[in-house]
Amino acid sequence: MHEVGVELGERSYRILIGEGLLEQAGQALERAGIRPPSLFLVTNSRVEELYAGALKKGLSDRFQLSTILIPEGETHKSLETCQLIWTRLIEERADRGSLVLAMGGGVTGDIAGFAAASYLRGIDYVHVPTTLLAQVDSSVGGKTGVNHPLGKNLIGAFHQPRLVLIDPLTLKTLPRRDLRSGLYEVIKYGLIRDQGFFDFFADRLDALLALESEPLQQAVARSCQIKAEVCSQDEREGDLRRILNLGHTFGHALESATQYRRLTHGEAVGYGLKAAAVLSRELGRIDSGSCARVLETVDRIGPRPAVDDISFKTLREAMQRDKKRVSGRLHFVVLDRIGKAAVTSEVTSRQLERSWQEAVDG
Amino acid sequence: MHEVGVELGERSYRILIGEGLLEQAGQALERAGIRPPSLFLVTNSRVEELYAGALKKGLSDRFQLSTILIPEGETHKSLETCQLIWTRLIEERADRGSLVLAMGGGVTGDIAGFAAASYLRGIDYVHVPTTLLAQVDSSVGGKTGVNHPLGKNLIGAFHQPRLVLIDPLTLKTLPRRDLRSGLYEVIKYGLIRDQGFFDFFADRLDALLALESEPLQQAVARSCQIKAEVCSQDEREGDLRRILNLGHTFGHALESATQYRRLTHGEAVGYGLKAAAVLSRELGRIDSGSCARVLETVDRIGPRPAVDDISFKTLREAMQRDKKRVSGRLHFVVLDRIGKAAVTSEVTSRQLERSWQEAVDG
Repeated sequence: MHEVGVELGERSYRILIGEGLLEQAGQALERAGIRPPSLFLVTNSRVEELYAGALKKGLSDRFQLSTILIPEGETHKSLETCQLIWTRLIEERADRGSLVLAMGGGVTGDIAGFAAASYLRGIDYVHVPTTLLAQVDSSVGGKTGVNHPLGKNLIGAFHQPRLVLIDPLTLKTLPRRDLRSGLYEVIKYGLIRDQGFFDFFADRLDALLALESEPLQQAVARSCQIKAEVCSQDEREGDLRRILNLGHTFGHALESATQYRRLTHGEAVGYGLKAAAVLSRELGRIDSGSCARVLETVDRIGPRPAVDDISFKTLREAMQRDKKRVSGRLHFVVLDRIGKAAVTSEVTSRQLERSWQEAVDG
Repeated sequence: MHEVGVELGERSYRILIGEGLLEQAGQALERAGIRPPSLFLVTNSRVEELYAGALKKGLSDRFQLSTILIPEGETHKSLETCQLIWTRLIEERADRGSLVLAMGGGVTGDIAGFAAASYLRGIDYVHVPTTLLAQVDSSVGGKTGVNHPLGKNLIGAFHQPRLVLIDPLTLKTLPRRDLRSGLYEVIKYGLIRDQGFFDFFADRLDALLALESEPLQQAVARSCQIKAEVCSQDEREGDLRRILNLGHTFGHALESATQYRRLTHGEAVGYGLKAAAVLSRELGRIDSGSCARVLETVDRIGPRPAVDDISFKTLREAMQRDKKRVSGRLHFVVLDRIGKAAVTSEVTSRQLERSWQEAVDG
């Protein structure tokens, strides 16, 4: 079992990573001092069918459990779905001592986390991420929220979970494409903060793709640890935390320009990581050898849908709507070397365009 | 000018209280280090007509200002109204550096505060309360939120303002009934924490009702100060903060049992304060002289709509739905003397009923 501590003062919590952890969920909650009189499992019917059995076995009858099923998919990441959760919580008289347990991918975690953050101005929640992306991304950072009809993730809150339980066995049922999508986020952590982890990733990529247990648990744990280090130093997204957005300014713009239909988030980030590497080279921050190594390793993760029909103009317009703008300016995360990231807004449109072209064509 | 500091670590802020302050709003913002590139005034059309002129004069052209009008009244304290605010913020490209300025009563502050708390996971807001109740209640505590179709204030967030500006001139246009409603909350602060302030209130009640400038500013400032002391020690509603709910367990139940139509919040709290005083006497915590003095002073604030048709059974059922329950138990705030409150859950149904009867009939 791996354990990662997220240090945030009185909001600190632990991430537990271990095979078969779902079936020990009850003990894990109790060991963390979590003994709610009532517990509300928020999940969708597909995930419920796969894992609610193991979880319920793990919780045994120590906890009074109600299940709130929400519709699956990004299109339901909305206030309407939150309203559905709130209505059930009210009807079943959830009070300030109640706990929301979110089981599923990032979408489920974001919605259920925001529902918990805003119910009675905040009740506890525990996160059980079942996709690789959610395990290495939503486990840390406390970001919760839903989409607005005019844009993604615009409504939300920072709300830290009380505990995160990661059972890598859940990845066995994950579609291959979703597994690869999560790996783009894993490689990102090496790029921004740990050259050794990047090397490990490059060496063991085949084992990761084959879901070998130990390297997979290591990769998940180290990813969470790096994100936790960054977020502990900067809980509410100041300068340091921005390095987590490596590849994301391009990535979000690309998702938006393709109406969130063609690419998964991870695939868009994959293109974004390549663009960020080229941009770093264009800015003279990394040499062309390092850049080539990043491009090659990202591409080894697997195929992505083509996006060479998207013009730079379309992409630039999408960037202008990015919510990461601060007082009107766009910021880019770049590399000073593999394992060290920095933030800059000193980027010309020409440099952006060149980065984009090479990321898409290369 | 009076100034009250609300000490909450890095979320600390100041409340400024002064006649004519609206016309100095720009200076006040700048002195507090608040210089947003764009500022969104959230208010309703009636308040806008009365005070937006003075405020805009105060902001001069130093700030780029957009006005977001929301419908007036408790029935519009809903997610729909938040959605309206979010849509305008997105359309006008508000970013993380933008500021929401809420001007109006408690409802406007609650909605606009929650909209700010949840937009991009939290942007700054400044509160300009224009009713006495909002000045002494919503100025401190960071409570924001909206109603759910199944209950009041069930959806929300703790979100501290960056600054609160109180201009007592706004009370000149306040309906008398709303003025009296605010005074019930003012007297509460003396009861829970400051016998001297209770004495001041009892002595100067006529001057307060006549809107005499200096006692009014003192009463507002001292109320904010007491609430600030309590909330600084207990930001997220633990035990200490519960004393602020003196009269509110009864009050909320009474509002609910009369479908929020017959009484203002303050009037319900007025009945609740009387019930709490009688309950304190029944529990042997205060003597009958002190109890009588509380009842008499509360009644001197002015007439309230009768509620003697509401049965204790109806009231008790409404109490059971109170969101202040913790793990299923109801707590009551009682007095150990005038100027000192305590919390107990050791109350019999019979004691509750007797308190209620005397508060209503007395």
